[in-house]
Amino acid sequence: MPCECCHKEIESKSKSESDEDQLVISGNAEHPANLICELCRNFYENGWVTGTGGGISIRDRERELLYLAPSGVQKERIIPKNIFVMDFKNKAYIRKPENLKPSACTPLFIAAYGIRNAGACIHTHSQSAVLCTLLFDKVFEISSIEQIKAIPKVTEPGNLWYSDKLVIPIIENTEKEEQLESTLREAIEKYPGTTAVLVRRHGIYVWGETVWKAKVYNEAIDYLLELAIKMRQLGIPTVKQLE
Amino acid sequence: MPCECCHKEIESKSKSESDEDQLVISGNAEHPANLICELCRNFYENGWVTGTGGGISIRDRERELLYLAPSGVQKERIIPKNIFVMDFKNKAYIRKPENLKPSACTPLFIAAYGIRNAGACIHTHSQSAVLCTLLFDKVFEISSIEQIKAIPKVTEPGNLWYSDKLVIPIIENTEKEEQLESTLREAIEKYPGTTAVLVRRHGIYVWGETVWKAKVYNEAIDYLLELAIKMRQLGIPTVKQLE
Amino acid sequence: MPCECCHKEIESKSKSESDEDQLVISGNAEHPANLICELCRNFYENGWVTGTGGGISIRDRERELLYLAPSGVQKERIIPKNIFVMDFKNKAYIRKPENLKPSACTPLFIAAYGIRNAGACIHTHSQSAVLCTLLFDKVFEISSIEQIKAIPKVTEPGNLWYSDKLVIPIIENTEKEEQLESTLREAIEKYPGTTAVLVRRHGIYVWGETVWKAKVYNEAIDYLLELAIKMRQLGIPTVKQLE
Amino acid sequence: MPCECCHKEIESKSKSESDEDQLVISGNAEHPANLICELCRNFYENGWVTGTGGGISIRDRERELLYLAPSGVQKERIIPKNIFVMDFKNKAYIRKPENLKPSACTPLFIAAYGIRNAGACIHTHSQSAVLCTLLFDKVFEISSIEQIKAIPKVTEPGNLWYSDKLVIPIIENTEKEEQLESTLREAIEKYPGTTAVLVRRHGIYVWGETVWKAKVYNEAIDYLLELAIKMRQLGIPTVKQLE
Repeated sequence: MPCECCHKEIESKSKSESDEDQLVISGNAEHPANLICELCRNFYENGWVTGTGGGISIRDRERELLYLAPSGVQKERIIPKNIFVMDFKNKAYIRKPENLKPSACTPLFIAAYGIRNAGACIHTHSQSAVLCTLLFDKVFEISSIEQIKAIPKVTEPGNLWYSDKLVIPIIENTEKEEQLESTLREAIEKYPGTTAVLVRRHGIYVWGETVWKAKVYNEAIDYLLELAIKMRQLGIPTVKQLE
Repeated sequence: MPCECCHKEIESKSKSESDEDQLVISGNAEHPANLICELCRNFYENGWVTGTGGGISIRDRERELLYLAPSGVQKERIIPKNIFVMDFKNKAYIRKPENLKPSACTPLFIAAYGIRNAGACIHTHSQSAVLCTLLFDKVFEISSIEQIKAIPKVTEPGNLWYSDKLVIPIIENTEKEEQLESTLREAIEKYPGTTAVLVRRHGIYVWGETVWKAKVYNEAIDYLLELAIKMRQLGIPTVKQLE
Repeated sequence: MPCECCHKEIESKSKSESDEDQLVISGNAEHPANLICELCRNFYENGWVTGTGGGISIRDRERELLYLAPSGVQKERIIPKNIFVMDFKNKAYIRKPENLKPSACTPLFIAAYGIRNAGACIHTHSQSAVLCTLLFDKVFEISSIEQIKAIPKVTEPGNLWYSDKLVIPIIENTEKEEQLESTLREAIEKYPGTTAVLVRRHGIYVWGETVWKAKVYNEAIDYLLELAIKMRQLGIPTVKQLE
Repeated sequence: MPCECCHKEIESKSKSESDEDQLVISGNAEHPANLICELCRNFYENGWVTGTGGGISIRDRERELLYLAPSGVQKERIIPKNIFVMDFKNKAYIRKPENLKPSACTPLFIAAYGIRNAGACIHTHSQSAVLCTLLFDKVFEISSIEQIKAIPKVTEPGNLWYSDKLVIPIIENTEKEEQLESTLREAIEKYPGTTAVLVRRHGIYVWGETVWKAKVYNEAIDYLLELAIKMRQLGIPTVKQLE
């Protein structure tokens, strides 16, 4: 995520509303391009994407399109015209905003779309995520907290139960975000029940069947990461010994 | 609270404004259906209902109706049409939004309405509530903090005094929310002076004579729970030894 | 501050805009009745007046009036019609909103107006204030922090310097807020350089020459209280030994 | 930063829209005078400029002008008419709002403009900045955290890499802000790769090529300062030993 944010680029506007613009300009608040802007503001307010960090993409299953937030821009200031659009089948960009670069997260998002048939992917630099990767070794683990019931089982329908153990794999960070792709793919394969992967000293990737499920999973997991840090600070194990 | 939030369901709208819709559509900001939406946004901003957690219901004493937020949806995005309405006398739903499920909190809310003649019930997954159930055993206790004066005595008119001890029972969590009903009822009976019950590793239930009293009690209790954790971290007992 | 907040009372409206209403209804955002509403929302967002706690009053020096927020209501929901107005000279109420009670802070505010010729007084239940009264004995002390330069010297024109020591007296809490009056008066007299008094296990009173000065002092002091707690937790003394 | 904030001064308005006003009145949201107001509100919400602390200035390279927030006023309430404008070449004020004082940060901002050819400078009283100056000695250091990639190398194009060490010099505070100028200049010269300078027990100065880069650097650095404190509290070194 080298920050090459340049406000002028965000400002750049096509003179006429081209065909490409029609892909992202919509009066419907539920349009992926509008949702990306709205959710980026929400994430910014939560401190998850400050300083151009993080990213999000949404898949339009019907039209077989992928909508992606651009690289290195202030997430809370993204407007629909900044959004990249990709053909889901051949992974070719069919809309590239002038002067903006595609997100380095793209290959990682594509991994989750491909392996897990996800409908949306979120990447944040949440401090709770970063800190948990410093407190846990190979996996983050927590059990017997009600909020766990918001997380899906993935390998079968339905969500985890209260006393189930949530396990999220942690992969090592690399110098460039793209280099994470192979270990991320391995982690997704190795942990068929996970809907997220933590990246050491970096952040978290979360995906879901729909954009709203991805958002809810991300919120619920961040709640659990934050709670786990507080539990550690108070000397309480995050995995409860069942009697 | 298995999270089965599905945005399409939230979107679902009746074609015509049916009689059922009239129960929840009102231009009056004080209408229970509008208040539920407003308060859910407020709770979301406080981090109490992230990831579809928590719930709220309001009783209309005059018309003998109960308004209930639905299960497993994003609380900050609830709209009046998502609200369930129940006949208070016979506890039958007279409005069930299509594709939504009634909250698993409902039997718990009904317990507080029945035993305590409450006018509104709030349930949150507040992290301070969860942490206090890990720091305290059978009951949460705090005394000699001014904010305690916002909490009612319940067994007699008026509120607690500054040096009174606030005692909130803690019950054990269960796999399913409905299973909490009997122990919640027991706790309410055993602690006739409490206006709240904590659930271990889960959250808190708070009720009051009116929706505003319930909201104020919930805020004041959450303030005290948060303060209690900080006091513990600083090595200060939450119950003051009176000289 | 016994919490007797009742939403209906807030709702109560006079049928016609009486003479009394004209005291608080104004299109000018700077009118004391409007400022009280605005600042209460600001304080609520800062967590200083949750659960009906805290209070504020503003003096209109020209018209010799005192505007006071009511007792036991949700501070973020106050509207101008809820404001009490007092004749500054004889301390008689010339506007008492129906069904509302005057704030128990009133005699304390009057002490600051009388002894210090204040133009506005703020009272909050800030958790940082409460915690500092548990970490410090007779006075709160901090020095050599830039933010101290926002605090006035009081006994002479101008503000404290960076390396000056800010000293805020701490008085013991009482069962009823009114009972604080005599010790508050004593503290103000004993510490002629203070623009605030902390109340053990309760909160803080801050005043200033104008409403904006009171707000700025309150913000700057709360910043210092919060910082002091973090410094203590990190083992750093709040008063710097000068070399 | 002696706080001499006086609301009346903020209120002061010229009778007619003078030539001087035209320098700061614009319908363009990207006009420096509008951006200063917007960013000050953003900083206030982040707790970086509470109680009149902090400051910001933006350079208009084309017109060779410097826009500066005034001294000692509430940053979240600044309006364009409060903005000072300076001729960049001869450093003479060409717009001085009546009753307001130029910011004491001005000579410090000018140092960054002159030595580094900056396009904008930000100064905050961030508590994380203050605390890090109490936890670190001559420099703040952190490495191997993804967010570091948002910070520029400065001495060559591009940003730091993940495993690079971010080093920010810490200078000692002085009684008056102006007195910081020489040591700030020395630090900028001595650390040619830094885009920020911390001031012990005071806060931080951050600059960048454009206002948006300065904002992003400030956000990313504050994230790292906050994270560093949490890492220290958890016993984790902020500089990773590379294997």
